[in-house]
Amino acid sequence: MKIEVTLGIDVGGTNTAFGFVDVNGKCVAESSIQTKAQNSAADLFSRLHPEVEKLYQTISDKYLLKGIGVGAPNANYYRGTVENPPNLKWGVVNVVEILKQYYDVPVAITNDANASAIGEMLFGAAKGMKDVIVITLGTGLGSGVVVDGKLVYGSDGFAGEIGHTVYDPNGRQCGCGKKGCLETYASATGIKRTVMELLATSNEDSALRNVNYNDLDSKMIYTSALAGDKLAIEAFEITGKILGLKLADAVAVTSPEAIVLFGGLALAGDMIISPTKKSLEENLFHVFRNKVKVLPSGLPEGNSAVLGSAALIWNEIIKLETITI
Amino acid sequence: MKIEVTLGIDVGGTNTAFGFVDVNGKCVAESSIQTKAQNSAADLFSRLHPEVEKLYQTISDKYLLKGIGVGAPNANYYRGTVENPPNLKWGVVNVVEILKQYYDVPVAITNDANASAIGEMLFGAAKGMKDVIVITLGTGLGSGVVVDGKLVYGSDGFAGEIGHTVYDPNGRQCGCGKKGCLETYASATGIKRTVMELLATSNEDSALRNVNYNDLDSKMIYTSALAGDKLAIEAFEITGKILGLKLADAVAVTSPEAIVLFGGLALAGDMIISPTKKSLEENLFHVFRNKVKVLPSGLPEGNSAVLGSAALIWNEIIKLETITI
Repeated sequence: MKIEVTLGIDVGGTNTAFGFVDVNGKCVAESSIQTKAQNSAADLFSRLHPEVEKLYQTISDKYLLKGIGVGAPNANYYRGTVENPPNLKWGVVNVVEILKQYYDVPVAITNDANASAIGEMLFGAAKGMKDVIVITLGTGLGSGVVVDGKLVYGSDGFAGEIGHTVYDPNGRQCGCGKKGCLETYASATGIKRTVMELLATSNEDSALRNVNYNDLDSKMIYTSALAGDKLAIEAFEITGKILGLKLADAVAVTSPEAIVLFGGLALAGDMIISPTKKSLEENLFHVFRNKVKVLPSGLPEGNSAVLGSAALIWNEIIKLETITI
Repeated sequence: MKIEVTLGIDVGGTNTAFGFVDVNGKCVAESSIQTKAQNSAADLFSRLHPEVEKLYQTISDKYLLKGIGVGAPNANYYRGTVENPPNLKWGVVNVVEILKQYYDVPVAITNDANASAIGEMLFGAAKGMKDVIVITLGTGLGSGVVVDGKLVYGSDGFAGEIGHTVYDPNGRQCGCGKKGCLETYASATGIKRTVMELLATSNEDSALRNVNYNDLDSKMIYTSALAGDKLAIEAFEITGKILGLKLADAVAVTSPEAIVLFGGLALAGDMIISPTKKSLEENLFHVFRNKVKVLPSGLPEGNSAVLGSAALIWNEIIKLETITI
């Protein structure tokens, strides 16, 4: 009997990665093509189709495709759409309908952060947990909220925007038009802005005084912090302090067993987890104290996005099978 | 055939109200006894039992008891317990076990705010909605969060503590030990504190300058505001502004269709709803704007707590019957 797999597709601004993943989260084959952000969604998926077929041929003697999960920016789970993604010239497009032209299996779509959350729940750090919040610390701050084993989509399919909860109503300008959103502080971009602020307010010597804003990235700040650069270390501490404060608010809403940190900035490990955990505990309502784990992602760094997208549709299939039984 | 009813019990610091409620939220008989907060839980329920029996006798020719729901402070739904309630000398006690000694029907317990949330969902302003947040503005600020038609209990049964999300980490001392919790601003007590602050910071003449802190209540502030007292009106505006800001954070987590305001301070109607709604919209992430309703409670003022407790167990019974079908 063939082993069942799902196809996970992760649509990024530059590349679209895809791979076949079994129910245990093992990726048995993967590849990628250019997204070509200036072109339409129809163009992407028409170019993707033969590549997926080619890859499937290499495994189809042993594996059987059961469903397709897509992670994409500004995706709406309920409608199957991607709606005006900032980095793709797609407008509003129904991705599920496009894919249904090519494949006769269940298809689901959600945004990258939600896909990561389901990935962590099925295959990663939140395996077996029913209540968890996954935070992706990339260019921005994305989040996926799991309640009672199910991703929270909310009334409109857009729940889980913890990056746009407000840390300081008079604070930093956010790309969304508001001021002081959490993601302007706690993200790869946020920590860069914090470094700039520290360069202005402190007299501390730092290797980062030789780097301009555009060249600076969160990996450099991490490397400097590891080398003992006090200003870089303080930037991580401030980031964790603000992140922990706002995560305490989110815990008060859904009371998760754990918070999983995912994405580029989360690769700094304890450098970011330790101050986040400290601030979280300080700001938690007493009934939640010493209960909420703060964990690094349990997904392999290389193909976590493909695993998340594959997990999205695995989760749907598992739900269906449970109901049938 | 007899009409099915559930028994709703609302345990308060002074009185314990109870009543029989049908599946449409009609309370067919109700009464109350003294709680006697210094006595044990066992004492309360042993005194309650004959009173419940007496009331049931008056309706049992037409009605059949299907289950019992209890709303009580510091109640834990998962464990069936009440745990160290601030106003009752109960310690940790399993209320469901106590009630099971007297009644051979399903029993469930939750805290007052969660019971209200289920009440609003089944019988009140949130009827038919699947995603909603209910805020009770009483002495403190309680909340019940409904996601996909189900109350969120979280990993430990204590989810929904929006009153203890942080508005200002350096702000007002909260009874919980933290500083600047939302309930120190947005609650009947919170608006009193805001009036005191305004009496200090402003030179505005006000009838409230003749009232001492202990005598002042939120109804007086409302009456003054209705009479055009500028300071009282400003107190409502500040309260709504802060409440709206923090509710925007909660919307970003679960994306509800509506927020229902319940409890004493919510009786001020538009005086509190209007500034709350304005501030909510200003602080919402753009995808949520112009979507989230802010509604007054749809439960009758007199027995809303009994209806909420009855709704809790109706909700369990309906779930069971749906699964059986």
